[in-house]
Amino acid sequence: MKMETQFSKIAERKLTQALGRVRDASRVTALLTNAQKNLILREAASGIRKYEKELLAANRKDLDYARSQKLSSAMMDRLTLSAERIQQIAASVDAVASLQDPVGKILSRTVRPNGLEVKRVTVPIGVILIIYEARPNVTAECASLCIKSGNAAVLRGGREAFYTNQAMASIFKRALKKQRVPEHAVYVLETAHREAVDFLLTREKDIQLVIPRGGHSLIEKVVAQSRIPVIKHYQGICHVYIDDNADVRKAAAIVHNAKLQRPGVCNAMETLLVSRKAAARFLPELEKLIKGRCEVRADEASRRFWPWAKKARPEDFGHEYLDKIFSMKIVRDVRDAVDHISRYGSGHTESIVTRNKQNADFFVQNVDASSVMVNASTRFADGFEYGLGAEIGISTDKIHARGPMGLEGLTSYKYVVTGSGQIRK
Amino acid sequence: MKMETQFSKIAERKLTQALGRVRDASRVTALLTNAQKNLILREAASGIRKYEKELLAANRKDLDYARSQKLSSAMMDRLTLSAERIQQIAASVDAVASLQDPVGKILSRTVRPNGLEVKRVTVPIGVILIIYEARPNVTAECASLCIKSGNAAVLRGGREAFYTNQAMASIFKRALKKQRVPEHAVYVLETAHREAVDFLLTREKDIQLVIPRGGHSLIEKVVAQSRIPVIKHYQGICHVYIDDNADVRKAAAIVHNAKLQRPGVCNAMETLLVSRKAAARFLPELEKLIKGRCEVRADEASRRFWPWAKKARPEDFGHEYLDKIFSMKIVRDVRDAVDHISRYGSGHTESIVTRNKQNADFFVQNVDASSVMVNASTRFADGFEYGLGAEIGISTDKIHARGPMGLEGLTSYKYVVTGSGQIRK
Repeated sequence: MKMETQFSKIAERKLTQALGRVRDASRVTALLTNAQKNLILREAASGIRKYEKELLAANRKDLDYARSQKLSSAMMDRLTLSAERIQQIAASVDAVASLQDPVGKILSRTVRPNGLEVKRVTVPIGVILIIYEARPNVTAECASLCIKSGNAAVLRGGREAFYTNQAMASIFKRALKKQRVPEHAVYVLETAHREAVDFLLTREKDIQLVIPRGGHSLIEKVVAQSRIPVIKHYQGICHVYIDDNADVRKAAAIVHNAKLQRPGVCNAMETLLVSRKAAARFLPELEKLIKGRCEVRADEASRRFWPWAKKARPEDFGHEYLDKIFSMKIVRDVRDAVDHISRYGSGHTESIVTRNKQNADFFVQNVDASSVMVNASTRFADGFEYGLGAEIGISTDKIHARGPMGLEGLTSYKYVVTGSGQIRK
Repeated sequence: MKMETQFSKIAERKLTQALGRVRDASRVTALLTNAQKNLILREAASGIRKYEKELLAANRKDLDYARSQKLSSAMMDRLTLSAERIQQIAASVDAVASLQDPVGKILSRTVRPNGLEVKRVTVPIGVILIIYEARPNVTAECASLCIKSGNAAVLRGGREAFYTNQAMASIFKRALKKQRVPEHAVYVLETAHREAVDFLLTREKDIQLVIPRGGHSLIEKVVAQSRIPVIKHYQGICHVYIDDNADVRKAAAIVHNAKLQRPGVCNAMETLLVSRKAAARFLPELEKLIKGRCEVRADEASRRFWPWAKKARPEDFGHEYLDKIFSMKIVRDVRDAVDHISRYGSGHTESIVTRNKQNADFFVQNVDASSVMVNASTRFADGFEYGLGAEIGISTDKIHARGPMGLEGLTSYKYVVTGSGQIRK
């Protein structure tokens, strides 16, 4: 395994060669039957279980390096594999096998007046580049979702997980080989060099889609450089708005869940908006659940109710804490809440708690976000929770796939037109 | 109207201001009912009829300028309006009004085991930038399709059609105003400056999608510069393959139609592939229809049948003539044809003529193109012919929209999740 100090012309040539093989592999994966794809996935899942020791050994190498780099404890935690995590990863690969085949679905079929049959049929996208951070489970997830959708995958994980990802890759390669599918169908970048990504982003003939999952700066960089279509999985600055006549018990439980059930994820609440009329009834209910468990950064009006809360600075609104912190503001009404959200939201997930149907409809209509919720926790914005079975991430884009992005988002379609000699008049 | 000689900071500021207004307008168009949208379109259509004189006068100004610039006669033809063309444009705007509303459609609805209702509902994309060449009818088509799909449009036509496009824009603005919709919902760029486009392509917060329709170099430039998602409408290098046992009469009629019914469009045939076994039966049939009407650039093997054809040079394969010219090659079989197409095709439209079901299936499965046809002319790859009602273009991309792109391609969706206080466990 190579960790070049310079990304050379030679490395570029090697990468170009590898991409050619990936492209060829994608022609093979596109034509696999569902049964063949499932055999590969079941084989990979059992490989993950079988090579537990090898995976843990590779992971220890990464952890040693990470320690020497003084990574944060949160990063170390995400990087660390355990026997239990490995079992979970294997189970998630098996779960993908059990999903419906997303390829070859007939999306529509019409027979035109001239007798032409026009069908729209789903097909794989081709080669998908996924760029992500140091989480070894993502390698297995992305590889399985790409295989199931008939795509070839180029995976570029964090350099912190380099050895773990390579070990995971060999398990998938072995499974592919066993079914006589070119192993380049899952290509985990063999270099940790950043220049490799820069180079890949110019190869629009070889790669059909880029999915960056990660921090703001990674995504900004990919968007600025890529000649290939990008589906962004940006941050979630999610709001919960408590409307005038909300059921305050339910409202408090939803806010508590949206922030504290798992504070570090993109669908966690970052800002609470409370209608002026609901504040006096609602805030005491919420206080019982969160005081002392969570830091609150509140505007002047809400600090009259909660003098113990910190003063919010302007930059607290529109900020993604990913921690046990949220900002809070009292707003006039649902219109004011929608205005705040359209100014500060990131288009990820927004929730209203209300018993007023008209206000709920107004919120749903006017909020421009991938998920708009009524009387539910923002934490539900998730492929499994929506019944997609698995997700490659949560798209904050409006093009191609929006919100939880499952197997369907990894397909395109073609028109199949069948005639009996029709010519155009 | 301004034709600045330098794209200044002041122009940039003005453009930024205008974009802000377009964004605000897009919030209004997103919420319009179908009836309101249709009133605007009917009003615009009757405005086009009513202001025929003004449109023709503006067009004369453009034609004068074009003559001074010595534009090709093909370009002059595409630029020229006539009373008849104006009637056609008005009719096409009316036709868009009569289509189904693409916004607010429920794509899927499930009730999850925890009682959450998860709906996927279509919504407009937001602000769409369309960059095209000197065809005044495109301005009206794009404006109407964007209005009908609830989007705001930023339109940048060729500088050759500057005055005509501005005149068309005022008609749409008047129609929008009459329905109290901000006129910036259709914003035709007031500057002919190329730098304006460069600037727009960096404004990913204001513009959600770019559709370039035009030549190779325009599209290449947009792809290289844009931070905004791009749906490319590239060239069509379309092939027709005549299989072993094709019905040779039908085959000849299809080839004749695919090339000569309208040679200058993207779904016209550019290369003919003929199976070795079909050549002796098929080529005499075709010769009757096209000899003397069309230039043929043929490989050695086919020149044995047609000594009158020109010798093909290697660059004749994969070339888009957009003229009464095609290249021709004799291939071994359907596999060989598919290999040729995957090397030289542009993923637009490919057709097989055959009576062999197995070969047809092989072709349909293995050819990676937006439209794959069996026993039909490539000329059918078109939004109207497929029953989409109208098209914004033919996408050669695989992301979001592929092939003829109608109103559906101009929408995104959001998840609407309705609960009764559910929290995540």
